[in-house]
Amino acid sequence: MNAKPKRQHSYNQGTTLSAWREALNQIVFGSETAAGRRFDIAVIVAILLSIFVVMLDSVADFQQRYAAALLWAEWLFTGLFTLEYALRLICVRRPWLYARSFFGIVDLLSILPAYLGLLLPGAEYMLTLRILRLLRIFRVLKLSEYLEEADILVVALVNSVRKITVFLYAVLTLVVVFGSLMYVVEGPAAGFTSIPKAVYWAIVTITTVGYGDIAPKTPIGQMIASTIMIMGYGIIAVPTGIYSAELLNTRKNQYLDNRACPNCGAASHDFDAAHCKFCGHRLDE
Amino acid sequence: MNAKPKRQHSYNQGTTLSAWREALNQIVFGSETAAGRRFDIAVIVAILLSIFVVMLDSVADFQQRYAAALLWAEWLFTGLFTLEYALRLICVRRPWLYARSFFGIVDLLSILPAYLGLLLPGAEYMLTLRILRLLRIFRVLKLSEYLEEADILVVALVNSVRKITVFLYAVLTLVVVFGSLMYVVEGPAAGFTSIPKAVYWAIVTITTVGYGDIAPKTPIGQMIASTIMIMGYGIIAVPTGIYSAELLNTRKNQYLDNRACPNCGAASHDFDAAHCKFCGHRLDE
Amino acid sequence: MNAKPKRQHSYNQGTTLSAWREALNQIVFGSETAAGRRFDIAVIVAILLSIFVVMLDSVADFQQRYAAALLWAEWLFTGLFTLEYALRLICVRRPWLYARSFFGIVDLLSILPAYLGLLLPGAEYMLTLRILRLLRIFRVLKLSEYLEEADILVVALVNSVRKITVFLYAVLTLVVVFGSLMYVVEGPAAGFTSIPKAVYWAIVTITTVGYGDIAPKTPIGQMIASTIMIMGYGIIAVPTGIYSAELLNTRKNQYLDNRACPNCGAASHDFDAAHCKFCGHRLDE
Amino acid sequence: MNAKPKRQHSYNQGTTLSAWREALNQIVFGSETAAGRRFDIAVIVAILLSIFVVMLDSVADFQQRYAAALLWAEWLFTGLFTLEYALRLICVRRPWLYARSFFGIVDLLSILPAYLGLLLPGAEYMLTLRILRLLRIFRVLKLSEYLEEADILVVALVNSVRKITVFLYAVLTLVVVFGSLMYVVEGPAAGFTSIPKAVYWAIVTITTVGYGDIAPKTPIGQMIASTIMIMGYGIIAVPTGIYSAELLNTRKNQYLDNRACPNCGAASHDFDAAHCKFCGHRLDE
Repeated sequence: MNAKPKRQHSYNQGTTLSAWREALNQIVFGSETAAGRRFDIAVIVAILLSIFVVMLDSVADFQQRYAAALLWAEWLFTGLFTLEYALRLICVRRPWLYARSFFGIVDLLSILPAYLGLLLPGAEYMLTLRILRLLRIFRVLKLSEYLEEADILVVALVNSVRKITVFLYAVLTLVVVFGSLMYVVEGPAAGFTSIPKAVYWAIVTITTVGYGDIAPKTPIGQMIASTIMIMGYGIIAVPTGIYSAELLNTRKNQYLDNRACPNCGAASHDFDAAHCKFCGHRLDE
Repeated sequence: MNAKPKRQHSYNQGTTLSAWREALNQIVFGSETAAGRRFDIAVIVAILLSIFVVMLDSVADFQQRYAAALLWAEWLFTGLFTLEYALRLICVRRPWLYARSFFGIVDLLSILPAYLGLLLPGAEYMLTLRILRLLRIFRVLKLSEYLEEADILVVALVNSVRKITVFLYAVLTLVVVFGSLMYVVEGPAAGFTSIPKAVYWAIVTITTVGYGDIAPKTPIGQMIASTIMIMGYGIIAVPTGIYSAELLNTRKNQYLDNRACPNCGAASHDFDAAHCKFCGHRLDE
Repeated sequence: MNAKPKRQHSYNQGTTLSAWREALNQIVFGSETAAGRRFDIAVIVAILLSIFVVMLDSVADFQQRYAAALLWAEWLFTGLFTLEYALRLICVRRPWLYARSFFGIVDLLSILPAYLGLLLPGAEYMLTLRILRLLRIFRVLKLSEYLEEADILVVALVNSVRKITVFLYAVLTLVVVFGSLMYVVEGPAAGFTSIPKAVYWAIVTITTVGYGDIAPKTPIGQMIASTIMIMGYGIIAVPTGIYSAELLNTRKNQYLDNRACPNCGAASHDFDAAHCKFCGHRLDE
Repeated sequence: MNAKPKRQHSYNQGTTLSAWREALNQIVFGSETAAGRRFDIAVIVAILLSIFVVMLDSVADFQQRYAAALLWAEWLFTGLFTLEYALRLICVRRPWLYARSFFGIVDLLSILPAYLGLLLPGAEYMLTLRILRLLRIFRVLKLSEYLEEADILVVALVNSVRKITVFLYAVLTLVVVFGSLMYVVEGPAAGFTSIPKAVYWAIVTITTVGYGDIAPKTPIGQMIASTIMIMGYGIIAVPTGIYSAELLNTRKNQYLDNRACPNCGAASHDFDAAHCKFCGHRLDE
């Protein structure tokens, strides 16, 4: 319904652009024209290829055999994306607003590591951040319903952020206290060489990951570990419960806010309501 | 109610068959006649035995001691299933529709690996795909309610496929970004020999599997790992929440009616309600 | 409400007993009299002690040092429990019904392993089955509400048994197919020495346990493993969703079936119903 | 609404204090005045710093290099917190009630380990218990909504405590029985050196932690382990289901009203409804 206009980014509204910048804008930002769609698809293919190149470059075998080709390809993609970023800044209506928007920052992050890698060797591997740019794929493929579904998931997350903060504080307290306890009980012999490491073990255990690189050896340590495991097993129910309840609630609110009362204008009626719950007027008149 | 007709496969409708093919169809596809039931049970027993034989064949001890007998048994079962597949093609009303149907493909997949194994040694172990044929067991044992329950589960899955796609994209982004980060921070010394391997580690960690074959060794690596673990622990709530909410909705839609009371307008009556539960008026007047 | 009578076991109803057997029954089966309560508490303490003794006996250190004392204690407890079992058989109204009831079998299982251990060394460790007898603790401590809560949990489980069967069949299919695939791809070098072992690995992985004793080593194996991990991570949502929905439903049914219509006698009205949904009569008249 | 007064602790009500103790109380217990807020923030910073010092002290590298400074810092913080505890006892209205309250015990626990460490070396590491004092952060930052959300989580936990007790008893029974079974089947060769250790393994497995330090080696052991894994995978649904259902119930009771329409008798109106949503009649007439 009104989802489309909301999706139109504010940095592309307001000012009028000169003819060529407007045409460029249609191609670079829009996906309604054939040229715009082709551009978007080219960008997505380039993103996928460039991530593939970065990954290959990190595999020692390939790196040694095709060092030159990989380097060349990486800088080619970086060059292209830098050019694209420049074009976006040139043809957007409000460049500074775009640069600070989510997509603006993602676009910058997808070229920065390459230049940073000249100073800090290794930083260029963070070019995989380009995967974030793939979010555009949903828009190009006209998958706006997917973005709406994502909205529901995000709204439910935002609504439960307080409960999850409280939950995370509780988890943090548990891992610090149990970590210290295990450091005292087990000591360096079993791999608990310091409290931070013991806290790391407690996180590995309470989240049920359980690498096994550090594991209790003494009977008392194993008893304490059993306690924290069963706790972790139990409290995984907490975020799930929070989120399920919130999601059900969000979904319910979805069904609510369609009709407005013809008398008083109030909205958010239940879907089985025949009368406005505020003024008593019939809703469907 | 109308579930039975829906279950009747379209490839067995339409054309009339000659007498003997009709009789064969009753036995091979039907499970109403005594002969049809006996045939189905024989097939199920043969499937279980053949999977057992394939599994035994993969155990080195048995393989060496009973090589000839196992080979003989495997080809016996493959021969029988090939014969059965041929019979099905002969006596079905629309052979081509059957061949492309779910069960047609499964029936083919349960003999193909044997012949493929002659060219590609090892492929014959995929004969365990025969386990998919066991789906027929539900029909033979008159467990159509189970299939209806399965329908509910599948409908809820299909309804939540968009949300789960969005969720999987988010997980993929997380493991690629965190994997790259760990490759930069930890490096080959701790087993993070390439970005793909680091991404594999991130998947092992975020799903809380935690083999421990690769594990962070530096304090910074362990801090990043802790973050991804707690994230994984938290976002496991997301698919559970999605699916629970969807399942509740599917169930609710099943049980709740959309009729409104003609007197007071109240809705959300049970399916078996004849009168409005609020004002007592007949619902179907 | 009517929960108490339901809890009264059928094997203790019907026939009349002679005076002394009736008195014994009061003590052994009942927990209303002071003697009955003392007997129950003595039994519970004996169970806990005997499990403790069995556990100690399995620890090599203790076994070597206190071999005689432990042997003596084990047979003392076994003798006491055998005597108790005999007493129960003597004073119960329908001995054969008791012997086949849940508690009758548990009581037998808690002495059998000791005698079995004379023939099969090691069997005596299964005396820890005595822990099942602790179920009586809920009755003794007048925790009948706990048993009612347990009933709700069990009813929800029973109601979702079909969905869970379908789910388990799906999981079984997945682990067999993926296990075979990994056996073909990885082979004995990485620990996948046979299909059954590869299936075991698939179960360890899909349930997110992840011991790490067997783990994929080749890139293709790690890709397949990633798929099964993300699947396992996702489908853990299925039983949780099934069970949550069922539990909510059970709870809802709890609120329903209290009032009966004064006109037609129909029950299972919603708790917000003012009129019978079947005949339209007011419910509270 | 009435949440604020509830939060006012009972140990700070009743008796009147002399002028200087009242002023001290405002600073130490209150967070309304500027001085009170500054005091609270100073305490929170001191807690974070002192936990950081304790953690650093446990890292061998730092311990050896800065032994004197760390010891000095630890005793400085302990001295400050001891002084603070004394001040709280002096200026509170009912010292004994405070000492036995949750925060009173936490405040004591955050200094005790330091003195205990003089007798029992190692105990001083439990000073990390100071993290519990951070709970005050929610009050200082005026995050009372967070505490209310926490209340909802806690209420749902308390309401489901019976179900969870029953569930934990079931889990305990499973791990003891399966642990004993594995001890008999696998024996010391695979690391199952005693029943308690086998029970520890069963807990590690059923909670899906899976360290891998102990893992079954025989085919029969791996079959039993598979059973317990799938059980663990399935029954993780139980606490999640319990908690989700309880949380939904808590929330529902919060939002839904028990008023019935005086005209048509319909119930389940929203809290903010003035008119019946079915017939439009005023609800409060």
